[in-house]
Amino acid sequence: MFGEMKVFSGSSHPDLARGIATHMGMPLGKLKVTRFSNENIKVKVEENVRESDVFVIQTSCPPVSDNLLELLILIDALKFASAARITAVLPYFPYARSDKKDEARISITARLVADLLETAGADRVLTMTLHAPQILGFFRKPADQLLATPILTNYFKTKDLSNAVVVATDAGAAKFAGHFAKRLSVPMAIIDKRRFDDSEKAQSVALIGDAKGKDAIIYDDEIATGGSIKEAARILREFGARTVRVGVTHPVLSGNALETLTSANLDELVVTDSIPISPERAKALPNLRVLSTAALFGDAILRIHGGRSISEMMD
Amino acid sequence: MFGEMKVFSGSSHPDLARGIATHMGMPLGKLKVTRFSNENIKVKVEENVRESDVFVIQTSCPPVSDNLLELLILIDALKFASAARITAVLPYFPYARSDKKDEARISITARLVADLLETAGADRVLTMTLHAPQILGFFRKPADQLLATPILTNYFKTKDLSNAVVVATDAGAAKFAGHFAKRLSVPMAIIDKRRFDDSEKAQSVALIGDAKGKDAIIYDDEIATGGSIKEAARILREFGARTVRVGVTHPVLSGNALETLTSANLDELVVTDSIPISPERAKALPNLRVLSTAALFGDAILRIHGGRSISEMMD
Amino acid sequence: MFGEMKVFSGSSHPDLARGIATHMGMPLGKLKVTRFSNENIKVKVEENVRESDVFVIQTSCPPVSDNLLELLILIDALKFASAARITAVLPYFPYARSDKKDEARISITARLVADLLETAGADRVLTMTLHAPQILGFFRKPADQLLATPILTNYFKTKDLSNAVVVATDAGAAKFAGHFAKRLSVPMAIIDKRRFDDSEKAQSVALIGDAKGKDAIIYDDEIATGGSIKEAARILREFGARTVRVGVTHPVLSGNALETLTSANLDELVVTDSIPISPERAKALPNLRVLSTAALFGDAILRIHGGRSISEMMD
Amino acid sequence: MFGEMKVFSGSSHPDLARGIATHMGMPLGKLKVTRFSNENIKVKVEENVRESDVFVIQTSCPPVSDNLLELLILIDALKFASAARITAVLPYFPYARSDKKDEARISITARLVADLLETAGADRVLTMTLHAPQILGFFRKPADQLLATPILTNYFKTKDLSNAVVVATDAGAAKFAGHFAKRLSVPMAIIDKRRFDDSEKAQSVALIGDAKGKDAIIYDDEIATGGSIKEAARILREFGARTVRVGVTHPVLSGNALETLTSANLDELVVTDSIPISPERAKALPNLRVLSTAALFGDAILRIHGGRSISEMMD
Amino acid sequence: MFGEMKVFSGSSHPDLARGIATHMGMPLGKLKVTRFSNENIKVKVEENVRESDVFVIQTSCPPVSDNLLELLILIDALKFASAARITAVLPYFPYARSDKKDEARISITARLVADLLETAGADRVLTMTLHAPQILGFFRKPADQLLATPILTNYFKTKDLSNAVVVATDAGAAKFAGHFAKRLSVPMAIIDKRRFDDSEKAQSVALIGDAKGKDAIIYDDEIATGGSIKEAARILREFGARTVRVGVTHPVLSGNALETLTSANLDELVVTDSIPISPERAKALPNLRVLSTAALFGDAILRIHGGRSISEMMD
Amino acid sequence: MFGEMKVFSGSSHPDLARGIATHMGMPLGKLKVTRFSNENIKVKVEENVRESDVFVIQTSCPPVSDNLLELLILIDALKFASAARITAVLPYFPYARSDKKDEARISITARLVADLLETAGADRVLTMTLHAPQILGFFRKPADQLLATPILTNYFKTKDLSNAVVVATDAGAAKFAGHFAKRLSVPMAIIDKRRFDDSEKAQSVALIGDAKGKDAIIYDDEIATGGSIKEAARILREFGARTVRVGVTHPVLSGNALETLTSANLDELVVTDSIPISPERAKALPNLRVLSTAALFGDAILRIHGGRSISEMMD
Repeated sequence: MFGEMKVFSGSSHPDLARGIATHMGMPLGKLKVTRFSNENIKVKVEENVRESDVFVIQTSCPPVSDNLLELLILIDALKFASAARITAVLPYFPYARSDKKDEARISITARLVADLLETAGADRVLTMTLHAPQILGFFRKPADQLLATPILTNYFKTKDLSNAVVVATDAGAAKFAGHFAKRLSVPMAIIDKRRFDDSEKAQSVALIGDAKGKDAIIYDDEIATGGSIKEAARILREFGARTVRVGVTHPVLSGNALETLTSANLDELVVTDSIPISPERAKALPNLRVLSTAALFGDAILRIHGGRSISEMMD
Repeated sequence: MFGEMKVFSGSSHPDLARGIATHMGMPLGKLKVTRFSNENIKVKVEENVRESDVFVIQTSCPPVSDNLLELLILIDALKFASAARITAVLPYFPYARSDKKDEARISITARLVADLLETAGADRVLTMTLHAPQILGFFRKPADQLLATPILTNYFKTKDLSNAVVVATDAGAAKFAGHFAKRLSVPMAIIDKRRFDDSEKAQSVALIGDAKGKDAIIYDDEIATGGSIKEAARILREFGARTVRVGVTHPVLSGNALETLTSANLDELVVTDSIPISPERAKALPNLRVLSTAALFGDAILRIHGGRSISEMMD
Repeated sequence: MFGEMKVFSGSSHPDLARGIATHMGMPLGKLKVTRFSNENIKVKVEENVRESDVFVIQTSCPPVSDNLLELLILIDALKFASAARITAVLPYFPYARSDKKDEARISITARLVADLLETAGADRVLTMTLHAPQILGFFRKPADQLLATPILTNYFKTKDLSNAVVVATDAGAAKFAGHFAKRLSVPMAIIDKRRFDDSEKAQSVALIGDAKGKDAIIYDDEIATGGSIKEAARILREFGARTVRVGVTHPVLSGNALETLTSANLDELVVTDSIPISPERAKALPNLRVLSTAALFGDAILRIHGGRSISEMMD
Repeated sequence: MFGEMKVFSGSSHPDLARGIATHMGMPLGKLKVTRFSNENIKVKVEENVRESDVFVIQTSCPPVSDNLLELLILIDALKFASAARITAVLPYFPYARSDKKDEARISITARLVADLLETAGADRVLTMTLHAPQILGFFRKPADQLLATPILTNYFKTKDLSNAVVVATDAGAAKFAGHFAKRLSVPMAIIDKRRFDDSEKAQSVALIGDAKGKDAIIYDDEIATGGSIKEAARILREFGARTVRVGVTHPVLSGNALETLTSANLDELVVTDSIPISPERAKALPNLRVLSTAALFGDAILRIHGGRSISEMMD
Repeated sequence: MFGEMKVFSGSSHPDLARGIATHMGMPLGKLKVTRFSNENIKVKVEENVRESDVFVIQTSCPPVSDNLLELLILIDALKFASAARITAVLPYFPYARSDKKDEARISITARLVADLLETAGADRVLTMTLHAPQILGFFRKPADQLLATPILTNYFKTKDLSNAVVVATDAGAAKFAGHFAKRLSVPMAIIDKRRFDDSEKAQSVALIGDAKGKDAIIYDDEIATGGSIKEAARILREFGARTVRVGVTHPVLSGNALETLTSANLDELVVTDSIPISPERAKALPNLRVLSTAALFGDAILRIHGGRSISEMMD
Repeated sequence: MFGEMKVFSGSSHPDLARGIATHMGMPLGKLKVTRFSNENIKVKVEENVRESDVFVIQTSCPPVSDNLLELLILIDALKFASAARITAVLPYFPYARSDKKDEARISITARLVADLLETAGADRVLTMTLHAPQILGFFRKPADQLLATPILTNYFKTKDLSNAVVVATDAGAAKFAGHFAKRLSVPMAIIDKRRFDDSEKAQSVALIGDAKGKDAIIYDDEIATGGSIKEAARILREFGARTVRVGVTHPVLSGNALETLTSANLDELVVTDSIPISPERAKALPNLRVLSTAALFGDAILRIHGGRSISEMMD
């Protein structure tokens, strides 16, 4: 329907892009991204894309603004170069947590990002494990969400789960953790922290459910500074957990995340490669395990190009 | 900024509309809704609205499609009658639960509703307690969400809460229930049901947290058939709850909800008037308590017209 | 151009949809329409439609609002399921008579319907015998109007027309009736009713043209309550008509139409199946004749899919 | 609401624009329209219009394309000069007869004109006596249609109508003529021409209704070449009409209309000034009577600016 | 991708359209453009274009407004006749010089033209040698600009350039002339006229660079009245130029251009056929040489249809 | 028209924003821009802006992508906080040099920026001295360009210009330099560099016009790395210039601009403060003179708010 398939990689995560292309058995499209001396980004598509079915891989990671703007400029260049269809592939969706107006006069920036992508010329979007599935409704174009959960559960199923409990770090994470617990057929617990007053420090901590003598698996969609994970690990050990492992889709690992997580003494930290982790950073976290999503994205792209259903992939 | 303020009521909930207008100290706008013999709806605005600041109150309740279409036609008539600004006031947002694509090839109908409202000519939207706050991001126009929680918590705070526990009927409701519990400063529990296999009947039930000898308050955003509430009440009593009360924002009460809830033996069922309940239906539920939102909506409309902040209302 | 052809039927007129599919020699697409307990419509497309050329058949008949909303939701689901092109097939166009602003502050709802269809995602529209051909101009997308006139004239041509006269029930219907008379090569007459004052009852009646001893054929685009048809038949008999037959494209037959028309003593009532008539209702009108449009729609759909001209069908 | 009112005149009909301004008691806005040597139109608005409520008067008359393009350029200049609201006042709407697709592969140009006006920046439209009222539905912005009928009927009511009959030149004009006849409380007749074969010449002519010894008033919305009016006058005289007068809203008078109408021997030709007629052309038609619409448009503009209803003007 | 290729010609430049079609080895599409008696343009596409890849050739030349409007109507007709893609081919872009707002309250009409083309339904645009390349940015659809420079330089390279200098008629034309000079590898000069005061006549003239004994080639993108060319030729001769030739892409030749240029005594005037010059006008200019662009446009259309790059043509 | 005026400053150039606010005699609006640990920008508007007339000042300078994205998010927050009108004030327009498609398959990023600003919610734009005035045509909303030229010429007019010549660094800059020369009433010269072959180094250099013994003033719209300015200064001195000064609107000063310009031995470098220069950087350039634009922007904002003409400012 849309001519030849072509896959381009933005600057954010070349390793994943190469992995996807390798899985698909095809080369990445030729592209030159340069900077003018005034920091302005210049994108030059270096092969003919007229009437092609183009996929652009760009995840959200530092430098976040540069990566997003580069993506918009790249899509714009492809559109005016007459690509037949442009699919933005965003393993970690930019501003996914800015998805609601929980304060006055702030921006629902995830929706703004959806608008900007459509304005630049994206015809469809492929992303993975959104913080809230409602974000797909921010698009006026077809958008698909892949789920990393099977990749993570498949990994944990290779371990002994006879004594495991899945733990949500707060009530807001209970939905995600509940699904995860059901897929692993293990019980669930929730950490319930309360502040006594407006000071952020003083608080009471309860564990709804049971962790005593258990192998705890904290589950969440993303890990940022690692602070709440570290705190959760401490609480779980206080409540008697035997081991504490963590399963997380998006390893944002921002700020002092490395130090924080190193000092958290986790038994294992399992993430996907939706966000790049440099070898040096990876080395700093001895218990880190990174699961590849290249096959997941590669298969999804082939299905989209072939007009086959994405949802069938996810059963 | 937008000329004279005018408030119109669709056919769905005239009692609430009158209550809002009374609270605001102004009459409802003149309007005639008729049906042609072929069921086509005809809306005639019967007073001049040129350059007026118009608010249209229409909730989502049976007949759902008629009410939604009537709203669209009314907005269209107001737009072409040169209203300066049209705010759709939707106490219960239509299709609020159809907010994500959790199956292949279904519609995110809440987003479609947002699109239809904007197409008809709505300049802004005012609603209350959305199932997911992300729905505000479905709009390309300013949209505000009022929260019914304070109305409900204020009511419960007049009761003895010394022994209370707030209960979520499943992990998905834990977020809502967690907020509610925090506002009431009482502990939380979660019902965790699991199916053993694909048959819907056989399941295990766990209560994460404790209900023994407690006064349980089940909290959720809406109550439809009452089935899961009845089931939750039964489970809570099994786990030793002393009393079972229910706090819910939107009393959808569809299907056999009345019979189901009557047989559920609830100690109290507290709802708002976001959806009309006929006097006969209300009588059938002796423990029903309906809290008025007229002042909340009336104040919000006055603030919007006056260019004052809505968010300040909600602290 | 648009991949595989698929035809789906909404809930409004399954008989016609099946007839069209049978004529085309292909099955209807798989689809499940259900209602949640709160009356919300859920549409699930049950087969892959990625890159397909999809046609959706939905006529306007009671329940009018449900059928229209179901159509919009179905189109939305198909769009986000990546259909290549979606053609809404509307044998009787919703709100076709609400096509102008002949009173202050009313909605041109036929145009609103066009807007809603485009917003939901319709790429083109196919309808039949619009009350005003200008309605096609309400669309920003290609829209085609089939004409039922040849089906009706072909039927009447099998009868003895040597003594016939085509009658318009008022000056507004003269244009339609004039075309019909020309196609049958018979003279035309017009009923001219005037009110003496504002009371709706007292009026003078003139027949412009001649009906004495003639076989009158009243022609119009739709028949709603049957009231004006019954009145016209009475007048024609007063003016000496020998027989009175009626040819009408859209059998809306709303309200007490059955009783009215039974008592009107028509020699024949000829309609198309653009709107479903249940067997019981059909039986109540012994002189009713329903002409099939399945071949007309089936051929038009095949032509649209094949990139052939619709207009050539209509000579 | 929209700041100071300003009225600008395009080049098409300065007399009417001055008449409107005089009726409103205000000057026309300063504007300079020039042509570059390459025929390109240059419009320079010569006074500040920031935040003003601007009305632009431009009718459709030769040179039609230049006048339409000048209007679009003028609106564009006003929009980017920050006018608060721009109302296009089009006494005779361009391409009003191109309102349907009665042949394959033609343009519904009246709808295209509506689109072009909106694209250029028109916020609302005011026109008069459209060929089809559905054309208002071509706009996505508020559009009003004034009716010239009262101006015309008021004129004819000053004459002896005791023996009058209103005549439609064909079945398509019966609707307009029927309304006119009702307003004058006189009977109606219709000329019914038929072709025997495909040759355009040979035809039969019937008069449905009666003209013998009557004072015929042919009524239509516009008069172009005058050919069908002349032919109708001839037929009416053949059928015994005593006098033949003509009432028409828009005096297009194209081609050899002057010669044709002079030779038609009409007793009177009554038109409005929606289209300019030069003094020389007016002199050539001794029985011509031009009725002014300046007050009608002036009052309508004042009402629109003042936020008052247009429809009340028309009772 | 877009079905069969079809090329249609508007009324502006049939010779060029035929030349392009001949170069491409295909016939022009069938089309009938007529005028109603009221000057309204009617376009009827006389062959099936459903799902075709349509190219419409229309240059900007007198009658400018008619040609532009005819183009918009033609595109509208093609869009609603279901053309798969419509490319407007505009050898000389309308209103190309109205590309900036260098006075208050004027229109950037070149941008308005881009908007009107997109509104009518143009999917892409092909033009040649724009006055400012930024005009391509006025489009929201892919737009390509061919360059006539190689056609002109190839011609001049057949002449003796050993003593040549390329001359810009003012500083604004220096950019164009600079490129031209570089392509011919000859020096450049610039005429620098200054006014002493606000009167337009009195001025000083300088020649920046050298023309003494040289063969001057004045280069510009278009020639309108020829006034500044004549003046430049005079100045160059004053500064000692041996011969004066002119190379210009677009021969607008408006007003008294023929007389002006005849009296300018140019040694040669070389233009392209982007704008038609009638044989009589051509004869009046004995030193005129018209270079054909039919091959350039024909090749570009074939490339666009075939999904090949346009930019590769231009090296 | 638009309620209270409010001026907000993005993070890019707080000094200029404060200067503008001081000139206007009003405080800057309250705003909090923070970063989440994952680099995502969060903007919180900290005062009510409902129905206000809001101006947002943000120039384009490093970090360019962050500043642009921050601006988009800020505009989005203001729009959904119900600002009546949002004017983006961009002293140096982002990506102003990416204004044309002079290579295949690149983005006209200045147009993309215009699109992004409109998508985010900007209602109008105010900028200064665009590289090409056509960029204003990239907007579909009113956009104004202030000119810094008078600020620069007023400065140079305080100097002795009796022996001055304005120099363009290449033919492309001749238009800008020509205007500048005319405003100063001094002659102009152009540097004409040619490459002999494809190697970028070997080239011939000509000076069109005369610099011998003159006081050269190089004029351009922006200075980036300073490389071409340094080269031009060298050439001018070779050709005998007595002094070399530089006047430039936008001091981009990217890369090693400071070192380059220090070594260029300019007699003076005069710029505006459209882009911030830190005190340390300023100190490194002893001959640097920065002219303030605060009054220019402050006056323009007051005029826009008051509905007065901007163009009158610029005579």
